[in-house]
Amino acid sequence: MIDELKSLADQIRFKQKLNVFPNNNEFDQILMFGMGASGLVGNIFQEIYSDMPVISINDRTVPNFVNSSTLVIGISYSGNTVETIDALAECRRNGANIRTITSGGILGGKEYNPLIVPSGLQPRSSLGYLLIPMVRTFMSFGNSDYEETSELLTRMDNNSSEIKKMAAALNESRSIPFIYGYWPFRSVAYRWKTQFNENSKCLAYSGYVPEMAHNDIVALKRTFQRDKISFIAFDPGDNKFVSERIKAISEITDTDFTLIRPRGKSLLAKLFYLIHFGDYLSYYLALERGIDPVEVNEITELKRRMND
Amino acid sequence: MIDELKSLADQIRFKQKLNVFPNNNEFDQILMFGMGASGLVGNIFQEIYSDMPVISINDRTVPNFVNSSTLVIGISYSGNTVETIDALAECRRNGANIRTITSGGILGGKEYNPLIVPSGLQPRSSLGYLLIPMVRTFMSFGNSDYEETSELLTRMDNNSSEIKKMAAALNESRSIPFIYGYWPFRSVAYRWKTQFNENSKCLAYSGYVPEMAHNDIVALKRTFQRDKISFIAFDPGDNKFVSERIKAISEITDTDFTLIRPRGKSLLAKLFYLIHFGDYLSYYLALERGIDPVEVNEITELKRRMND
Repeated sequence: MIDELKSLADQIRFKQKLNVFPNNNEFDQILMFGMGASGLVGNIFQEIYSDMPVISINDRTVPNFVNSSTLVIGISYSGNTVETIDALAECRRNGANIRTITSGGILGGKEYNPLIVPSGLQPRSSLGYLLIPMVRTFMSFGNSDYEETSELLTRMDNNSSEIKKMAAALNESRSIPFIYGYWPFRSVAYRWKTQFNENSKCLAYSGYVPEMAHNDIVALKRTFQRDKISFIAFDPGDNKFVSERIKAISEITDTDFTLIRPRGKSLLAKLFYLIHFGDYLSYYLALERGIDPVEVNEITELKRRMND
Repeated sequence: MIDELKSLADQIRFKQKLNVFPNNNEFDQILMFGMGASGLVGNIFQEIYSDMPVISINDRTVPNFVNSSTLVIGISYSGNTVETIDALAECRRNGANIRTITSGGILGGKEYNPLIVPSGLQPRSSLGYLLIPMVRTFMSFGNSDYEETSELLTRMDNNSSEIKKMAAALNESRSIPFIYGYWPFRSVAYRWKTQFNENSKCLAYSGYVPEMAHNDIVALKRTFQRDKISFIAFDPGDNKFVSERIKAISEITDTDFTLIRPRGKSLLAKLFYLIHFGDYLSYYLALERGIDPVEVNEITELKRRMND
């Protein structure tokens, strides 16, 4: 697994683009489908790109509005995710333009106009391969941004001892992580939750500031099992609206948040810094628990039972 | 508070529509803004209506694509939600068509083309007033659907003893509710979470099937603090894809889900049945805990500190 984590720095340098032409007025909106780790690609992209309406669906349901003006992008590392296959079949019947990003499988078939990424990883370790083509196709980061990001990840790979300590503390307290993000990294908090689930075999919650200031805030101090929860918040530093609220909420509710400040200059570097932090934290938490971070037996068993 | 809960049946009969003409090709997409209980209106609407792209944002960030083809609808019961005011100001600068649904406040000003709903409720008790105008404007339910829904809610008001028992059991176990929904009621699971937060002062988690079958499933049996969590799942009955998965996940992970089956014939009735169930459950849990379900002191204090 550690080799897979370390491959993220290389994945950032993946150069392929989707076979679409965003500036040609070919389509009016982008609809992205995907589940779990692959679904996160749409969720993250929807936050960081907004020149066109992007709707990310982590389900097999298809909106009525889909037609020939819709670009549909299915993300599935395995290429065999049943929800995504079902959704894309319905989109095709409605005349949508279909693309996929996948390592193969059914969704790697020619009729899906696939962009094929390197295979052999855990789906959740392939986030770079799945997301970077979206970024390169639609957004205009410079080469230096990709380089900064890749180098930052390599530095994390070479020194993750602080994150390891944090994992040891989580294991010590045996507490449920509650992770709060903020725009444009709300979905990264959700990524942390899914990584705690799959790697550490631990349930987790994700929310974000300022939405949580309208509901969770009332429960932070008075909830059941308060001492069985670890509170983590991404703290932007350069976004006063968010940072001031985190500070005030911490004081008002007497809650200790472990604050995670994104590093890097570019949005891309900050994004992947936070992602990689959660990858290592959940990985080390698995090791601390004596649990194999790789196996996801229950997913395998469910697929077997459902004949997916 | 109980009177506010009971007012929901009447709110379903609220007849006003927004001053927009969906079939006139005035706009290409709907962008909805709102926080907390008001934000839920956009989240729910986005799931049940899909003839046009709807994007619901529970934040103050505005996508770049907003222009004169965008219908922007701000939902804020108080009319004074700072995030929504900020977002709508930016949308106006970008030339969008603005509407609001509110009981007054700043967002009740003429320049917002407001639809004014009755005032005097807790924002979270006004969901009918805020959501029904969206439904009447854009969707084509028959009169019998509204009547069925209203009558079903009244029957719940007259007999909520089963829900009260469920609240007593939650209080007994002092456990954190994890609520799993499914489309088109994914956001209702989130509504339950927010109601547990605000009414019961208890943290809670919401997710949905099938997405949770790609991450949570791995942690259900092996998580920290498993015995401090109560698992609840909405069970459709008439959606085999979802119901079979809930059953299989329960067996594979040895997890007891309390299953909630929506009642009613129409989508509208099922939607509000599930909403009202969560309203009562969180209300009774507050009473069981000896907590005032109405006060949300931390929200008030945060607004004071932030000068919102």
